[in-house]
Amino acid sequence: MERYDIAIIGTGPAGLSAAVTGTIRNKKVLLLGSKNGSLKVEKAHTIENYLGLPSIPGSELQNAFQAHLDKLGISITEDRINAIYAMGDYFALQAADTMYEATTVILATGVIPGKLLPGEEALVGRGVSYCATCDAPLYRGKTAAVLGYSPREEAEAEFLSEVADKVYYFPVYTGEVDLPDRVEVIREKPKAISQADGKTIVETEQGSHPVDGVFVLRESISPGQLVPGLETDGSHVVVNRQMATNIPGCFACGDIAGLPYQYIKAAGEGNVAVLSAVSYIDQKKRAANN
Amino acid sequence: MERYDIAIIGTGPAGLSAAVTGTIRNKKVLLLGSKNGSLKVEKAHTIENYLGLPSIPGSELQNAFQAHLDKLGISITEDRINAIYAMGDYFALQAADTMYEATTVILATGVIPGKLLPGEEALVGRGVSYCATCDAPLYRGKTAAVLGYSPREEAEAEFLSEVADKVYYFPVYTGEVDLPDRVEVIREKPKAISQADGKTIVETEQGSHPVDGVFVLRESISPGQLVPGLETDGSHVVVNRQMATNIPGCFACGDIAGLPYQYIKAAGEGNVAVLSAVSYIDQKKRAANN
Repeated sequence: MERYDIAIIGTGPAGLSAAVTGTIRNKKVLLLGSKNGSLKVEKAHTIENYLGLPSIPGSELQNAFQAHLDKLGISITEDRINAIYAMGDYFALQAADTMYEATTVILATGVIPGKLLPGEEALVGRGVSYCATCDAPLYRGKTAAVLGYSPREEAEAEFLSEVADKVYYFPVYTGEVDLPDRVEVIREKPKAISQADGKTIVETEQGSHPVDGVFVLRESISPGQLVPGLETDGSHVVVNRQMATNIPGCFACGDIAGLPYQYIKAAGEGNVAVLSAVSYIDQKKRAANN
Repeated sequence: MERYDIAIIGTGPAGLSAAVTGTIRNKKVLLLGSKNGSLKVEKAHTIENYLGLPSIPGSELQNAFQAHLDKLGISITEDRINAIYAMGDYFALQAADTMYEATTVILATGVIPGKLLPGEEALVGRGVSYCATCDAPLYRGKTAAVLGYSPREEAEAEFLSEVADKVYYFPVYTGEVDLPDRVEVIREKPKAISQADGKTIVETEQGSHPVDGVFVLRESISPGQLVPGLETDGSHVVVNRQMATNIPGCFACGDIAGLPYQYIKAAGEGNVAVLSAVSYIDQKKRAANN
């Protein structure tokens, strides 16, 4: 299997900055995430404090980032990573239907907007799933609910509806929902997930919706769920000034590495994280040659 | 005396980023340093990894930074700070012929290129000075040597020559020197400073030059000399992830806060430092109101 030097998870300013400097430093970089970059950047009205680009609309900043990637020939692999395992000498990254390998990993996934739902964490793998593409086959002839935290999740719900008997879609955002009629859109705000009588239940202000499984699809999953053994502090990963986590070879940057949630801070941390990854790789190579 | 909320020392990417966000956050910001920004940025051939501004010549990046300052109406006070004293409730910043006061201080001065000269530190205040404007009056009828680490220091040597009997100028850079004839330019590389027979001596590969006093004029002076009591680690200031130093209300960012020396990292840290300063000020205000 192809072994990358650096796998970067996330295409916000932190991940992109890491990819830019990693590429310039001649490392084999795998950049994983949405091709549209960070929704937070894209949807920002105007960003006033990204030094050098005054009063820039989010969409234009996103374009400037994309132009930078294009200039360096960096491409984004649009795949969602569900788990990352430290294998000693490398990391195994598990996506829906493939695995990736990389010597180092940089977590730049952002933070989950808001908190986990009550009941959610306890039911992961027992009625709650984070990956429709992975688990869809299990729902043949069954019912499922999809809690979509951004319009990007609609595609997952649509795919799931091709397999499952019935899919209920709860958009956790405002605006249009573009889904085929066979998906039933329920405009109620999920407030908890529970279980009873062999069913998993989406609870809302208005009522209860029992199904066979609930898919909670956010931009990112919590770092502790993503990387077993990772030291976290609430929704943040604990890092030092070099952006190193407690797992050797695993670095974090941007919002996931802590406050403040700022674009230029994220871009700066991406740079530091990738240079730390480069040092780590070079050190390993020197050790192997001795 | 006018009391600023935040005094920022240094006009490289770290200082400018701090000034931009501090101003947006409605704080009274004093930005001190060269109006031309960082020499390092200005002279960089091409910067490849400032996310959003691909392959940009240093001079253009500097222009983009200046445009950002202009947009927000931020001005630079061109004054050199020689010492910063923590007064408990505020900081006193000592410049050549004035004092400034600020509730918080952000050090963004960059790092000294290269090391101190052998003998330099031991002779500070006893033959070695860092401020021609401050100490010139002491050199009436005497001889002085100026070790200028950038062309900007020529003005200091010229001013000194209006007072002193004789000024020798050692340019520690290549290129033209533009000074009146009364200043003697010596193109020898200083390698140490010593004392003998009541004279302070500039030692070079080629010989020894005894004078009454030596002015060492670099872009910045070392952080420990600038802020008494500041915890340092070599040429760096020790900071935490919030860019706080060991002195409450004093923050640091950019190259002075440690490796890697990267523009986007500096800009990111400036943002974090100033938001930490804003929190510190707001907390103090709340405490005062209770």
